[in-house]
Amino acid sequence: MMQQLKGFMNDNIPVVEKRLNDLVNEITAPDILKEAMLYSLNAGGKRVRPLFVLAVMDHFNVKNDAAYTVGAVIEMIHTYSLIHDDLPSMDNDDYRRGKLTNHKVFGDAFATLAGDALNTLAFGILARMQQVDVEKRLELIDKLSVAAGAEGMVGGQILDIEGETKQLTLAELENVHINKTGAILRFSVEAGAILAGASSEEKEILVEYGHHIGLCFQIKDDILDIEGTSEELGKTAGKDIASDKSTYPALLTLDGAKEKLHAHYNKAIEALEKLPSESKLLKEFAEYIVHRNK
Amino acid sequence: MMQQLKGFMNDNIPVVEKRLNDLVNEITAPDILKEAMLYSLNAGGKRVRPLFVLAVMDHFNVKNDAAYTVGAVIEMIHTYSLIHDDLPSMDNDDYRRGKLTNHKVFGDAFATLAGDALNTLAFGILARMQQVDVEKRLELIDKLSVAAGAEGMVGGQILDIEGETKQLTLAELENVHINKTGAILRFSVEAGAILAGASSEEKEILVEYGHHIGLCFQIKDDILDIEGTSEELGKTAGKDIASDKSTYPALLTLDGAKEKLHAHYNKAIEALEKLPSESKLLKEFAEYIVHRNK
Repeated sequence: MMQQLKGFMNDNIPVVEKRLNDLVNEITAPDILKEAMLYSLNAGGKRVRPLFVLAVMDHFNVKNDAAYTVGAVIEMIHTYSLIHDDLPSMDNDDYRRGKLTNHKVFGDAFATLAGDALNTLAFGILARMQQVDVEKRLELIDKLSVAAGAEGMVGGQILDIEGETKQLTLAELENVHINKTGAILRFSVEAGAILAGASSEEKEILVEYGHHIGLCFQIKDDILDIEGTSEELGKTAGKDIASDKSTYPALLTLDGAKEKLHAHYNKAIEALEKLPSESKLLKEFAEYIVHRNK
Repeated sequence: MMQQLKGFMNDNIPVVEKRLNDLVNEITAPDILKEAMLYSLNAGGKRVRPLFVLAVMDHFNVKNDAAYTVGAVIEMIHTYSLIHDDLPSMDNDDYRRGKLTNHKVFGDAFATLAGDALNTLAFGILARMQQVDVEKRLELIDKLSVAAGAEGMVGGQILDIEGETKQLTLAELENVHINKTGAILRFSVEAGAILAGASSEEKEILVEYGHHIGLCFQIKDDILDIEGTSEELGKTAGKDIASDKSTYPALLTLDGAKEKLHAHYNKAIEALEKLPSESKLLKEFAEYIVHRNK
């Protein structure tokens, strides 16, 4: 199972990680700032978002080196959001992926600024991608801004914090995650479709796939917080229950959350079946999201 | 003196402020987030950066409504940087422009996120400016990203924090300010030149003007911290001396700082004289920066 995805990951993750490093190393900035930016970029992670860009490109059989750059840019946005989320004023986490969080190493001020620098750099890199035509670059910048900002990820983070003090309904919880983690995952899939020159119909189908994948991702995260170990996760397991957080298992029971996970998995697969040609890779990717143990 | 500038400010500031509000109000996001973004955008300020965009457009006699949008975008970036600078982990300021700082009203987490949202929104707005041709939009995004990020403002903020623990040389102090406040001021002038379709020679002259204006701005700030009152400034005067900060007066004496201010003023005016036609407005703007009392 997932033979194709495994090879795909092994081939592409090193290229994405090299691109991330190259894009930061080539800028002229204070050493300590670049060090703080690279610390979190190189702290591991599954690189799911860049891989979605590349998997969609692969589906359309389009090769463009810019896909690695777009993937790296999305990973920068994701990484900045983690650095800010981990700050004492937010989640106050000391560890992330088994390593000290950015502010534990560089201090709160530099961590805040390293996040700001990654957020800002991401948009400049997209604007400068000479291998991508100008209209597509603008479309990517427009949609990344919406997905990452007040209308997407940052807005979802606000809803998540507001939700900490009350019991959320399932619809409210879903709305948090559609924005907080979903918006960037949907954008990753859409970015691959934009770069590949997909039709607007194909884009719509892929965004639907991305929507369900995003929810699968979050529900699985909630389940892993209960069933996983801190060692596997690289962060403290059981934190959600300890903090009485609204999660899928808390609202639906653990079994109910697993049912919900599989319902969204099925919808993701149904979306893929509407595409003109089969995508084994995107199908395996959905399986991976549901079956991962970290 | 400064008759033309005064009228220009009175005419344009309300339009810039309306544009700022319209651009935030039209997005779909949690109410509290929009409120936090608008709180700081509407906390007053001299609107110097948008006015520079507009004054350069005026010099070239080009009218384009997009100049207000570009000005508003730069003000968003400036405002996000102030929100983050004021955080307890950074300057820990309770007041800004005579009002409570963002985190004193909305809390540290929401202030951090309101800053992130403004930073992110800025780039999306530039990408969506239908009245500006695509190449110019990309040039503005590219250069704003450089001016605002690790290579400019954020990098300068890092240098400023690093400098707090040591005595800076004049060259080091200048390098802090060329990045921390200078980069965005230079970009404001350059953005007006890009929008107006200026030649690369004219752009270069204007960036030189912007460079000296940026230094004038910071030196004047340092002088006002000594000579101004907290009431006029809307923030605590005398803070630099109290915190033993490296400033122009600390390194050069108050008289030496004033000489330096006038030297950069003269260089700004000399740059303007290299332009094919006279700009009374940009000249008055330089005078205003030097003579302001807040």
